[in-house]
Amino acid sequence: MYTISVRGHMMIAHSLRGAVFGPAQQLHGATYIVDAEFRKSDLDPDGIVVDIGRATDALHAILAGLSYRNLDDDPAFTGRNTTTEFLARIVFDRVVDAIRRGDLGPSAGGIDSIRVTLHESHVASAGFEGDLHT
Amino acid sequence: MYTISVRGHMMIAHSLRGAVFGPAQQLHGATYIVDAEFRKSDLDPDGIVVDIGRATDALHAILAGLSYRNLDDDPAFTGRNTTTEFLARIVFDRVVDAIRRGDLGPSAGGIDSIRVTLHESHVASAGFEGDLHT
Amino acid sequence: MYTISVRGHMMIAHSLRGAVFGPAQQLHGATYIVDAEFRKSDLDPDGIVVDIGRATDALHAILAGLSYRNLDDDPAFTGRNTTTEFLARIVFDRVVDAIRRGDLGPSAGGIDSIRVTLHESHVASAGFEGDLHT
Amino acid sequence: MYTISVRGHMMIAHSLRGAVFGPAQQLHGATYIVDAEFRKSDLDPDGIVVDIGRATDALHAILAGLSYRNLDDDPAFTGRNTTTEFLARIVFDRVVDAIRRGDLGPSAGGIDSIRVTLHESHVASAGFEGDLHT
Amino acid sequence: MYTISVRGHMMIAHSLRGAVFGPAQQLHGATYIVDAEFRKSDLDPDGIVVDIGRATDALHAILAGLSYRNLDDDPAFTGRNTTTEFLARIVFDRVVDAIRRGDLGPSAGGIDSIRVTLHESHVASAGFEGDLHT
Amino acid sequence: MYTISVRGHMMIAHSLRGAVFGPAQQLHGATYIVDAEFRKSDLDPDGIVVDIGRATDALHAILAGLSYRNLDDDPAFTGRNTTTEFLARIVFDRVVDAIRRGDLGPSAGGIDSIRVTLHESHVASAGFEGDLHT
Repeated sequence: MYTISVRGHMMIAHSLRGAVFGPAQQLHGATYIVDAEFRKSDLDPDGIVVDIGRATDALHAILAGLSYRNLDDDPAFTGRNTTTEFLARIVFDRVVDAIRRGDLGPSAGGIDSIRVTLHESHVASAGFEGDLHT
Repeated sequence: MYTISVRGHMMIAHSLRGAVFGPAQQLHGATYIVDAEFRKSDLDPDGIVVDIGRATDALHAILAGLSYRNLDDDPAFTGRNTTTEFLARIVFDRVVDAIRRGDLGPSAGGIDSIRVTLHESHVASAGFEGDLHT
Repeated sequence: MYTISVRGHMMIAHSLRGAVFGPAQQLHGATYIVDAEFRKSDLDPDGIVVDIGRATDALHAILAGLSYRNLDDDPAFTGRNTTTEFLARIVFDRVVDAIRRGDLGPSAGGIDSIRVTLHESHVASAGFEGDLHT
Repeated sequence: MYTISVRGHMMIAHSLRGAVFGPAQQLHGATYIVDAEFRKSDLDPDGIVVDIGRATDALHAILAGLSYRNLDDDPAFTGRNTTTEFLARIVFDRVVDAIRRGDLGPSAGGIDSIRVTLHESHVASAGFEGDLHT
Repeated sequence: MYTISVRGHMMIAHSLRGAVFGPAQQLHGATYIVDAEFRKSDLDPDGIVVDIGRATDALHAILAGLSYRNLDDDPAFTGRNTTTEFLARIVFDRVVDAIRRGDLGPSAGGIDSIRVTLHESHVASAGFEGDLHT
Repeated sequence: MYTISVRGHMMIAHSLRGAVFGPAQQLHGATYIVDAEFRKSDLDPDGIVVDIGRATDALHAILAGLSYRNLDDDPAFTGRNTTTEFLARIVFDRVVDAIRRGDLGPSAGGIDSIRVTLHESHVASAGFEGDLHT
């Protein structure tokens, strides 16, 4: 299995509802350093998993759509806690959408699975991984 | 599959028996930077894999029980080499015990698997991963 | 010159006023990974620059006083932009206050200078350094 | 599943053929920081996955055979693009060869799978992972 | 003294002349992860050392002018070894030029000194620092 | 001012005497990741601060002389606490000795100052810096 991984980041405000979150129930924020890993069984004729430039651009566009905002005000997340693991799934879903729209080019068609990891600090991260052909 | 990962560290002395270890047969020591990754198929109603605060506290308590000691003197390890990979398994087992005692809260009940990684330097690490429902 | 450095982090929301900030004028947030470096000409009789445990506790207490909050609502910052460099100075001032209160113990009396660095992402940081005896 | 991972690096020149590579079609170069992870179900009697010293030496020897060279001139890669993912496979294959030659010692015989990751910058990496007993 | 630091990277090919360089006399290459740190005594009225967006753009433009090339063919470096420390000075000089052209905006006028660091691997880096008002 | 920095590591056991050290009074250990930075006003005719290969070899030799040992048994440290800051000074002194013996080659003669940093974990480090011509 071949992989490539690209990195970007976003800076957001949000609050979390539920006693489990303690002080994080208050409005606060985070920098998420985001890695998107793409996995494929074989390389294409150019010798790549996916166009790394297009993958980076697609990830950065997805993160720009979330960054510099208060996620509590985003209608897409009404009634949901925007935890790190939940946001990893959101980024995953939007990367899959970008692939299906053709934003990552034709070689992205053969991608088997994707793993998105959000690093929220030097001591904590969360992620979501899923197959594309299930 | 959703994941969260938390980090702590421990500082220990030990020696290793066997020609394969070369100079590490002498009493020496290590800082282990320890990552514990928890994997679950679905988020709980709060939107989390597990309470990250409790997971961090549980990991830190386990590492405090090993840290600032000479592991050669620990009866739990009599007759065993406390290699990095062996210690990864020890931390894994103790994290599983903590989950079963309820230390990580009710959401930890659904955890599918755990991966523990010990970084012993900037150029070497070891780990152990296992399922919880086998 | 001897140095020791300890690390902590805080997660905050804020907005910045001024066209120079572009989208960061909107309410957003950041994780700041914070390093505090202490410099001293000589070691004390124990062989240390400062009690690393107390230095860590003091830094964590200062960061806890800022974390999980919207800094736009903090009266201490009214009329000021809480930029990364400004916050580095705030943490510096509070570390100096902690030393003067004796929170870092007697060996901290001889500290010559301090540097505080806030890492806001994997690609940007800011800091403030200053002498203590000027 | 137990794992150990060792790190080395290589510094190479190369060019890539195909419009997808944009400016990387020109002769340029890269530092690759290379991690080789070894996975095994059980520890050997010494308590290890594999002799970490031998594994490091074997990885470094493989990287020395590629480093400080223009890969465009290497007959082994004629007609192929030496992309990061392709080079991850090359390193993987050579690690497998080293195991089969006995360079990593007898404990390496039980290794189930290997993952090789090449970090080409702070924002991009690629890898190849494969089983040894298929 | 306040500081901000921004990061970028470049990927180049080159060779070095002189027995001291050993195998690096052959054509090879490197990824340089580049940090540019700006130091100033006081913050401007917006509360910043320099516009971090403009500083990042200026650094990236300078690195783009060096990246994806064989530095042996660059007339600017004829007769010089493009060592990591030499390239740190080149980037420093070009950052100073960018400031003098006004590319970093008016707040950059008060910058006292700059430090440029090039990380060539996980185990080696080089840098150049200098004052702007000497 | 030009700089180059090289990295190595050592793994040691020790104990520390004094109530300030809390549980670190017990025999324990540490991995120290060690950076040695060399500073010089001008590059030599080859375009370097110092031969990076020789500097790396000298640092590794110094660290090998301390590694895989219990520092409590080293006569060189009798009656002293081998704190991280103290060990930074020891490594500094031994690097200076290596320069004076000629181990780093003739270009090392012009080095103005050196900074040695020991990272004892992901959250703490200590260092010593000093001039060579005072």
